[in-house]
Amino acid sequence: MSTYDSSIRIDSGRLWRSLGELGEVGAYFDADADLRGVRRLALTDADLAGRELVVGWMRAAGLTVTTDRIGNVYGRRAGVDDTSAPVLIGSHIDTVATAGRFDGCLGVLGGLEVVRTLNDHGVSTTRPIELAIFTEEEGVRFGTDMLGSAVAAGRIELDRARERSDPDGVTVGAELDRHGLVGEVAVPIRPPFAYLECHIEQGPILAAAGTRIGVVRGVQAITWLELQISGRAAHAGTTPQRLRRNAGLAAALITVRLNEMVESGAYGQMLATVGRQVNYPNLINIVPERTLITVDLRNHDGAAMRRAEDDLTAYIAEVEERTGVTVAARTTARTPPVVFPQGMRDLVEKHAANLGMSSDQVTSGAGHDAGEIAALCPAGMIFVPGLYDGISHNPREYSTPEACADGVNVLLHAVTELACTAR
Amino acid sequence: MSTYDSSIRIDSGRLWRSLGELGEVGAYFDADADLRGVRRLALTDADLAGRELVVGWMRAAGLTVTTDRIGNVYGRRAGVDDTSAPVLIGSHIDTVATAGRFDGCLGVLGGLEVVRTLNDHGVSTTRPIELAIFTEEEGVRFGTDMLGSAVAAGRIELDRARERSDPDGVTVGAELDRHGLVGEVAVPIRPPFAYLECHIEQGPILAAAGTRIGVVRGVQAITWLELQISGRAAHAGTTPQRLRRNAGLAAALITVRLNEMVESGAYGQMLATVGRQVNYPNLINIVPERTLITVDLRNHDGAAMRRAEDDLTAYIAEVEERTGVTVAARTTARTPPVVFPQGMRDLVEKHAANLGMSSDQVTSGAGHDAGEIAALCPAGMIFVPGLYDGISHNPREYSTPEACADGVNVLLHAVTELACTAR
Repeated sequence: MSTYDSSIRIDSGRLWRSLGELGEVGAYFDADADLRGVRRLALTDADLAGRELVVGWMRAAGLTVTTDRIGNVYGRRAGVDDTSAPVLIGSHIDTVATAGRFDGCLGVLGGLEVVRTLNDHGVSTTRPIELAIFTEEEGVRFGTDMLGSAVAAGRIELDRARERSDPDGVTVGAELDRHGLVGEVAVPIRPPFAYLECHIEQGPILAAAGTRIGVVRGVQAITWLELQISGRAAHAGTTPQRLRRNAGLAAALITVRLNEMVESGAYGQMLATVGRQVNYPNLINIVPERTLITVDLRNHDGAAMRRAEDDLTAYIAEVEERTGVTVAARTTARTPPVVFPQGMRDLVEKHAANLGMSSDQVTSGAGHDAGEIAALCPAGMIFVPGLYDGISHNPREYSTPEACADGVNVLLHAVTELACTAR
Repeated sequence: MSTYDSSIRIDSGRLWRSLGELGEVGAYFDADADLRGVRRLALTDADLAGRELVVGWMRAAGLTVTTDRIGNVYGRRAGVDDTSAPVLIGSHIDTVATAGRFDGCLGVLGGLEVVRTLNDHGVSTTRPIELAIFTEEEGVRFGTDMLGSAVAAGRIELDRARERSDPDGVTVGAELDRHGLVGEVAVPIRPPFAYLECHIEQGPILAAAGTRIGVVRGVQAITWLELQISGRAAHAGTTPQRLRRNAGLAAALITVRLNEMVESGAYGQMLATVGRQVNYPNLINIVPERTLITVDLRNHDGAAMRRAEDDLTAYIAEVEERTGVTVAARTTARTPPVVFPQGMRDLVEKHAANLGMSSDQVTSGAGHDAGEIAALCPAGMIFVPGLYDGISHNPREYSTPEACADGVNVLLHAVTELACTAR
């Protein structure tokens, strides 16, 4: 029964129904999009409800479920040689505050569908297969993305991760304890044999080219900064412009400059975003005394990223000089660019071709758990296209049932080949 | 006993104690300033507590207290010819969220001190003297400043004023009803004989020049705008800059442009402030979908103000074109420049000179109730200097006991002269 059968396919209807069912956990009506969206921030009650649903499905599929110290969940399907290193499939089910139902969930439920399909066809594999749900991939609640996989991979220490807190001062550690998510598996975890993750592209390239599968070259570098700008509150009607120390103006200058840096082309394929801004006291007739902004920088090229960080730091000093504010900058996340091994990219490309699907090499714009686990073992990713320019982190995020099935069929065959590899 | 006695003076210690006592109502500790500040937003419970304290003092000073339909309070001291139009003294006791204890309160408690002093010396006047506390002068809660005096003067209709709501959707009307502040005095009110208001300068000019009294020429024009910028939420790591419709970037461009307009000098003595900014969803890795900003424009020159408004509107259209956002602009307040009659300015200047105080003509940067009541009768204002560049709307706001007493002594003698004028 252990024979590899290249004709087997996943049950795309079952995968689609699972995505729909999980998408109802933490669902809300988004008036702007006029659509139901998903809000399931990491380690909230909604996230816990989502975990319980998926863990129930894992158990029903015969998986043995364990949890590590940072709340990452692993569902294990035994191998014939059960002491050999497992093939790990993973992703996340936590979401941003205005999410769709695909980001992360396709990877986890796609992995579950791989297991269900192997079960349906009675396929046993040499190596065990494990399915991981990683904690706080989005980073929107506790400020560091890929937190769970970074702890699993040893880049972030457990104690530091537990100390991180959300805007209300609630820590990761307190939430893990509250939900009983501190498991017996030690971190960093033991290196798997290989890692694969299927994910929506979250960008426009595949759909624009009509390509069915994205073979992911790697993940771009990410830097997150938090800038606390301190000026002086003053009456908007009486304080001459030259006497102001306007924190809001400083924030605007930095925001505009970042956009100019991107448009200059001088930093390669850089992206820069000021997503969060909080003024204090935030009143119409008072010059802002303090303004907090966040900066999200992405770059395919690690050297260009460092140059952009340096140039931003120099510009911030110029703004301090010019506007009289002081800026305290804190780096809340910083990951170098990751390049996946050629062998993993070839494996994905081969199975896409075997299945008659077109494929292209793409670099991931978003951070992914695969970028962390790549530190432990050969890792790779499979992208599928999304509609509407691949819009994501938005209720309009949408990949068709066919696109989802494409990616998970490639995952099925690539994982099966890996799991049948003796060494 | 009705004889005018130019040697009488107010009790500056009593005035100072009253300012201190009222400043404890709604007090909070401001960690940034390391000082106690005041937070007594209009029609909140704190504002009501402040009103009750002052109304108690009014009654104790023998004033007959009435209230109009918008909650403005009037304390009347009878005149010998009690059917003649009264001399009105007024200001406000509502504050911004991070206030000191002088803005507005000096005018109200200074007026009370005038009455107390006249009582102490047994001075009776031909005309009645009325002391007004105007509702929601700051405009920070319900979005329109000088709301109470504008309704009293007939510029804003009562029904429109009652409909205005705070950020939580609570209306002016609901708060007036809740506090029992809908009084029997109809609005617009009957024109007083004249109006005087003593106020802190809230600017650096008097202190820098060492001048004790500011004779106020008039109040500059004020325009308040609320800009609702609508873009599209998108993933910060994957959405190419050219496909973004970034509401936060549009807000930053407008903020920077307003500052450039001020610095250009092309709009006279313009001030421009973006005090409030709210991003949605306000997350580090999402391009802002919607951003609200407020714009506060001030100008001594009505024509320059209109030119600035037109040029801003044109620039907003340019930003819409360039960034793909749409901007809905709403004018929430708009008052033309006010020039006080020469006779009222001469009166203030004369009494400052009689009292041996230096004085200078200044134009008010802030809006004041006097600018509204000027539509009903000859109005004037007396400014006193403040420390620290006249910082205001901040717990550091401070005028010395001597400066406060200077202004109120001028008020005392100017009001007494007006109130002894037969026609």
